[in-house]
Amino acid sequence: MSYVIGLDYGTDSVRTLIVDTKDGSEISTAVFYYPRWKAGKYCDASRNMFRQHPLDYLEGLEASVKDALALAPHGTAAKVVGISVDTTGSTPVAVDRSGAPLAMLPGFSENPNGMFILWKDHTSNAEAEEINQLAKRWSVDFTQYVGGIYSSEWFWAKILHTLRSDEGVRDTAFSWVEHCDWISGVLTGHTDPLTMKRSRCAAGHKAMWHERFDGLPSEAFLSELDPLLAGLRERLFEQTFTADVAMGTLSKEWARRLGLPETVVVGVGAFDAHMGAVGAGIEPYSLVRVMGTSTCDMLIAPNEEVGELLVKGICGQVDGSILPGMLGMEAGQSAFGDVYAWFQNLLAFPLQQFLPESEAAQLVEKIIPTFSERAAEIPVNEQDPVALDWFNGRRTPDANHKLKAAISGLNLGTDAVRLFKMLVEATAFGARHIVERFRSEGIPIRQVIGIGGVSKKSPFVMQTLANVLNMPIRIARSEQACALGAAICAAAAAGVYNTLSEAQAAMATGYDAEYFPQQDRVGVYDKLYQKYLKLGDFVEQHLTS
Amino acid sequence: MSYVIGLDYGTDSVRTLIVDTKDGSEISTAVFYYPRWKAGKYCDASRNMFRQHPLDYLEGLEASVKDALALAPHGTAAKVVGISVDTTGSTPVAVDRSGAPLAMLPGFSENPNGMFILWKDHTSNAEAEEINQLAKRWSVDFTQYVGGIYSSEWFWAKILHTLRSDEGVRDTAFSWVEHCDWISGVLTGHTDPLTMKRSRCAAGHKAMWHERFDGLPSEAFLSELDPLLAGLRERLFEQTFTADVAMGTLSKEWARRLGLPETVVVGVGAFDAHMGAVGAGIEPYSLVRVMGTSTCDMLIAPNEEVGELLVKGICGQVDGSILPGMLGMEAGQSAFGDVYAWFQNLLAFPLQQFLPESEAAQLVEKIIPTFSERAAEIPVNEQDPVALDWFNGRRTPDANHKLKAAISGLNLGTDAVRLFKMLVEATAFGARHIVERFRSEGIPIRQVIGIGGVSKKSPFVMQTLANVLNMPIRIARSEQACALGAAICAAAAAGVYNTLSEAQAAMATGYDAEYFPQQDRVGVYDKLYQKYLKLGDFVEQHLTS
Repeated sequence: MSYVIGLDYGTDSVRTLIVDTKDGSEISTAVFYYPRWKAGKYCDASRNMFRQHPLDYLEGLEASVKDALALAPHGTAAKVVGISVDTTGSTPVAVDRSGAPLAMLPGFSENPNGMFILWKDHTSNAEAEEINQLAKRWSVDFTQYVGGIYSSEWFWAKILHTLRSDEGVRDTAFSWVEHCDWISGVLTGHTDPLTMKRSRCAAGHKAMWHERFDGLPSEAFLSELDPLLAGLRERLFEQTFTADVAMGTLSKEWARRLGLPETVVVGVGAFDAHMGAVGAGIEPYSLVRVMGTSTCDMLIAPNEEVGELLVKGICGQVDGSILPGMLGMEAGQSAFGDVYAWFQNLLAFPLQQFLPESEAAQLVEKIIPTFSERAAEIPVNEQDPVALDWFNGRRTPDANHKLKAAISGLNLGTDAVRLFKMLVEATAFGARHIVERFRSEGIPIRQVIGIGGVSKKSPFVMQTLANVLNMPIRIARSEQACALGAAICAAAAAGVYNTLSEAQAAMATGYDAEYFPQQDRVGVYDKLYQKYLKLGDFVEQHLTS
Repeated sequence: MSYVIGLDYGTDSVRTLIVDTKDGSEISTAVFYYPRWKAGKYCDASRNMFRQHPLDYLEGLEASVKDALALAPHGTAAKVVGISVDTTGSTPVAVDRSGAPLAMLPGFSENPNGMFILWKDHTSNAEAEEINQLAKRWSVDFTQYVGGIYSSEWFWAKILHTLRSDEGVRDTAFSWVEHCDWISGVLTGHTDPLTMKRSRCAAGHKAMWHERFDGLPSEAFLSELDPLLAGLRERLFEQTFTADVAMGTLSKEWARRLGLPETVVVGVGAFDAHMGAVGAGIEPYSLVRVMGTSTCDMLIAPNEEVGELLVKGICGQVDGSILPGMLGMEAGQSAFGDVYAWFQNLLAFPLQQFLPESEAAQLVEKIIPTFSERAAEIPVNEQDPVALDWFNGRRTPDANHKLKAAISGLNLGTDAVRLFKMLVEATAFGARHIVERFRSEGIPIRQVIGIGGVSKKSPFVMQTLANVLNMPIRIARSEQACALGAAICAAAAAGVYNTLSEAQAAMATGYDAEYFPQQDRVGVYDKLYQKYLKLGDFVEQHLTS
């Protein structure tokens, strides 16, 4: 009888989940909200600057693990055999020779450039653009495995922007580390940036690491991008590791601080969505969609079946980023729940203008449920109007952040319920656009597995999605798929199971709802999807500057 | 010192306005709401069937004139020298040999087909389509002066539909009369359909009457359309008359019923918008826009200047329909205030769902004023998104009732205020589309004169319109421009002035607001208007079934 711990670092908080290695059942869980982040420190939303202090992470590590152990039955700690970590990403930090984030050093403790640069920080737009321009004219296309377009949310853009804008950091930084690597390094005491085991998932999806490049982009490419990057490549890493690999065991210090045995194995980390896919029971050709404000869509296929296939227009494809031996592919919609939130905000306006704040807030909560119920009663037919879901640009297929949404087919009879229905359908069409792209690139998709807030909260959205995709959608039972996925990885890294797939088969906790396509709507949605594509083509060609 | 009466029959009520012939100043006014109409009788909104009983009109005639006289200083009645009538249109009724509407005869009093078929009745869509098809293959294009597309809201379509669908009416109807003709006929006792003076305005704009056709469309055309129409042409009329012409004097009976002298001259009637243009002070090349739920846009040009010019894609052009000697041209947007009402309804939904009815109703009233104020504060720039105003199809230019509206350029930052601003701009672009059409067809437009509810109530809409049109907009002072226009026509018909233009110069009461284009916005709106055209082209070509 043994337990494992999944540590899930989200944008606002870190969660510890202790589960039984036998069947993944939950022993206890605890959450810790980052105090500096909550206070709005080191951020400037108007510039899309979002930084997180390493102490938020370390305090959260200690507090959430201890709280979860305290909530578990007596004797739990002694049975823990593994810990794995998932985090947001790309969330890199500048470190010194020892692997300490600069913000942990004297003189840098209040400098945002010495902190973790959160995934959604957009301060390096210009640098991303330069990377893309150079990549286009370079002999080797280093962006080919990350969808052909490098993002300002990723590793190299953030490093370059920081080195350019902060002389102190430039002089002191020895190397750079992703959040998911650093936590595992801290727990094991292996923080040396030259030798710590780096996550395949983070490196492949965000740092353009690939075996065919012999690792990271070449020194020539990086120096050409900016001489400030010269020499950095060899202070980073050559090898990367999948999440079934052990980073080491708990250091004496952290075993003491957490109250766990020093024998506890710490696995190599990965990103939250990818470990979430593991927790949700991802299998070849099942699309796992993390559906929240945006979506992250993950797909795996056995390496031997896909071979050298390059999927155009998705976010990235990395061998082993989700399960070892499988190509892990990532796509996503840049607005999903956010589209419904837009509608809610629109309709909330008069309530907020005319009513006392608390009354308004209470009523605003009722908007989406009320409209979901009403919209479900409306029949669909081929003459129905369509809208586009590009309220935050388009992430995939074919990233274009300049695109905007549109709503067509309006007349005086288009009431708020019908408008809501159109918006839900638009997000489903956006999902189908991704599915169709995978298929046309040679990757079949057989079913959808949903996780994330919207998948649990909105049966109307899920039913519409099943109808538009003409595929069944299963909703993962776990409310904590990411933490569960991390725990499953820990069980594999600790050797409780021979492979991560075996661990997943035993521990992923199945589904608690399934939506089947309503066949009388499938054909209608085929037609409406064509209208969606036509509207999208026009907007992309003529209304995008 | 003499007075005249303008009788303005609107959709819901009839208004009597007594004015001084010297300067158009108001002596008194009274309104009467049609009781049967108010009770919803003889209508079926789900089929767009809207009928009005002649007794609603007659009771309203007597009551509103008497009420207005009662409110006027003692001795007013004796000074009245003329009455003219404007009504909605095309609002025809089947009459017997004496000119009595069938609903006034025994056996027809409750039959909607023997009543006035209100302008907005759409029961004859199929017949309008047949008229258009026949017109297209006929040697003479009888639709050439009514914009090239015959509407189901007009005279012949309504007649044909009624004759086909009601045997009793078919057997009893001798002729057909427009509402504006019938009231003048009743007042003078000249209701004989063969000899009564018919309105040039009604006949030219709605019955395809034109001098070049020797009057109405040919017997051959009408019989080909349907043998049911054979012989009707010669039971209608050959000649038509402008609104400066006297129909006759008050009949003994109506002089007694109204308490007016038998010497009172009754003028030939016309449609409300056209007399409204007279009341608003229309002059050559000034576009008078009646801005309510939809708009009616009127323009006049001296016959000698326009010659044989045929303006494509507008609603109609009729010599003398507004002022004698001038070509009266009509265009319009099928949704204007209705677009703002759509927005209001959208945002009203949560209020109406979640709050008590009376509280909700009170707050709903605040939506448009609140948003107008906020939208006015937003700067405009060339990157702004655009919307289409076709929430009720497009009336002009180039009528197409199948068109639908669209909203483009949406992102997560597009809040309700910005959406409202886009919709207001869309209605202004629709207005500009009409103005540009007149210009490209060779008719200059120098300024805009606004009348109607929206022109008075929404400075934000008017300022936006001035900016988009790059023309000054004057708002007519009179709240009752139509009734005032009718009174002005009465003064001309009664001979108080030599011409209608002279009467108008003396009696139209000027302006109480003027909006000037803000030059820093004019250039931006030129660009955004191009975007509007592009979006419209796409929707018309690809999203219209």
